[in-house]
Amino acid sequence: MKIAIDAMGGDHAPEAIVKGAEEAISHIDDLDITLVGDEKKVKQYLSGSNNRINIIHTEEVITAEDEPVRAVRSKKNSSLVLMAKEVKEGRADACISAGNTGALMSAGLFVVGRIRGIDRPALSPTLPTTDGKGFLLLDVGANVDAKAHNLVQYAIMGSIYTEQVRSIHRPTVGLLNVGTEEGKGNELTKKAFNQLKEAPVNFIGNVEARDILSGAADVVVTDGFSGNIALKTIEGTAMTMFSMLKETLMSSVKTKVAAGMVKPDLKTLQSKLDYSEYGGAGLFGLKSPVIKAHGSSNSRAIYNAIQQAAHMVEYDVSETIKTTVESIEQNKGG
Amino acid sequence: MKIAIDAMGGDHAPEAIVKGAEEAISHIDDLDITLVGDEKKVKQYLSGSNNRINIIHTEEVITAEDEPVRAVRSKKNSSLVLMAKEVKEGRADACISAGNTGALMSAGLFVVGRIRGIDRPALSPTLPTTDGKGFLLLDVGANVDAKAHNLVQYAIMGSIYTEQVRSIHRPTVGLLNVGTEEGKGNELTKKAFNQLKEAPVNFIGNVEARDILSGAADVVVTDGFSGNIALKTIEGTAMTMFSMLKETLMSSVKTKVAAGMVKPDLKTLQSKLDYSEYGGAGLFGLKSPVIKAHGSSNSRAIYNAIQQAAHMVEYDVSETIKTTVESIEQNKGG
Repeated sequence: MKIAIDAMGGDHAPEAIVKGAEEAISHIDDLDITLVGDEKKVKQYLSGSNNRINIIHTEEVITAEDEPVRAVRSKKNSSLVLMAKEVKEGRADACISAGNTGALMSAGLFVVGRIRGIDRPALSPTLPTTDGKGFLLLDVGANVDAKAHNLVQYAIMGSIYTEQVRSIHRPTVGLLNVGTEEGKGNELTKKAFNQLKEAPVNFIGNVEARDILSGAADVVVTDGFSGNIALKTIEGTAMTMFSMLKETLMSSVKTKVAAGMVKPDLKTLQSKLDYSEYGGAGLFGLKSPVIKAHGSSNSRAIYNAIQQAAHMVEYDVSETIKTTVESIEQNKGG
Repeated sequence: MKIAIDAMGGDHAPEAIVKGAEEAISHIDDLDITLVGDEKKVKQYLSGSNNRINIIHTEEVITAEDEPVRAVRSKKNSSLVLMAKEVKEGRADACISAGNTGALMSAGLFVVGRIRGIDRPALSPTLPTTDGKGFLLLDVGANVDAKAHNLVQYAIMGSIYTEQVRSIHRPTVGLLNVGTEEGKGNELTKKAFNQLKEAPVNFIGNVEARDILSGAADVVVTDGFSGNIALKTIEGTAMTMFSMLKETLMSSVKTKVAAGMVKPDLKTLQSKLDYSEYGGAGLFGLKSPVIKAHGSSNSRAIYNAIQQAAHMVEYDVSETIKTTVESIEQNKGG
């Protein structure tokens, strides 16, 4: 299989991308990688020649500041757009970028293309839970004005991914809501609740934001606005707590001594909360796997995202989503 | 002034309520308190007779499991409803409950009553920030299907409270959104952004959930659904991190020794994140101050909520909201 990667996207590009790609090549059999970006800069970090990594040269780049839709339309030779074209034109099976999230969503939609029957793709990171199992949250911002039937499709796509790639049998699906009882919520969640009860997923009802990190459900569905708020609140709270903890531990000689003693353990704790361990955020509902790696991805995070993309190709997640949605539509029609 | 308190609401009622009330009486001059609840149980915790604390006896209680609107209608002699009636009938200036949040909102709306011109009250906790200043988040669930003009009213009410009670001059107002740039967001936030630009508040634009705990704005406005998700995500993430930190610190002899050394410092850290330090959540937009204390409130949290209610009465927050809203309506009309 072949995976195309935007070598210029993310805070640590191209170094982290190139090193992550080399690590993936050495660990995953039957994998070829196409790095799209400035050849000279990319080659600077390649440890040697490897016939399983090839480079498509381009100097155009979409930056974090670019307006997504416009950038994808006007920067046709950018590393991100050329990467997506590799997938569209069948030369790659999946693609990954750590660059501009909005631009990747646009390229996914306009270049790679939607699965017929999926109204709106969903951006879907896997987040850590206390038990280490993790859960899939979708959508976190691909579609900020979601309708109830979008949430049902998220539940179906998320269940397929979780079952096939994460090997969780009959994954539980929870609806993010302001209370656990049926009948709670806003117009959207009340409607979605009723539709999810009828959907071909293991729906367990409403889940509260307070409980999702403790593993309330394997798949948590929500509209892109609320999902984005939840995701960024988790990030912000964790960041705030670590910085306050650091300040506390550096506040006196005594605490500094203690900090030295627990430093490796705190590092382990931090990595438990690091969701790049679970790969990137999948953009579900597209014809081929498209993965958004975190902007701050290091080579390890890129390696994890490649592994995730490879699993999605191997288990044919996009095709399963397509046939599942088709059969649901046929049943409705019949 | 007189404050009525639901002596039976909350996980530690009536003990925490009674003790918090006694503490408040000893610290705040010119304060009388009416405790509403089971006289025998209340008296058990009263350290002595105090002519500034009186008791209204009732044995009926609204529990956490009661359906809010129905409970307020049917349990007319519950401590929560009788407390609200004290305010409605002018025998108390403000009221506080740590009980069923939905029931308190219903009692606020149906017993205490809305300020004319305020379409929907907002539930408004003050949350901690890294710099210790704190910020007001509203709404966190009084109105889960908010319209843009509701958010504008939240901004006005939040600014008045923050200026008068928290003594922050010209408090900054941010709109919780998925990105900081103008034009970001869902239909609601795009519309609210435009209306907030014209509102008589110090509007600084969109703020992201990632930045609110670092003090991105003094007042953060959002619809009740998203606000509830943000609030509970903060709670859940903090809880998860503390439990993982505890586990880490208890994992070996070495870490246990270190933990012993930093224990008091970690307690300080935990209290910095404890938002009951800032009082309870105000239900803004009602004719008199109504405060929701956290369900897990200890006597200290109750004391803080009483102090907060006393400040709201002293600075006449409800009246200021009323006259401000009236003058805005008059300007529109003229």
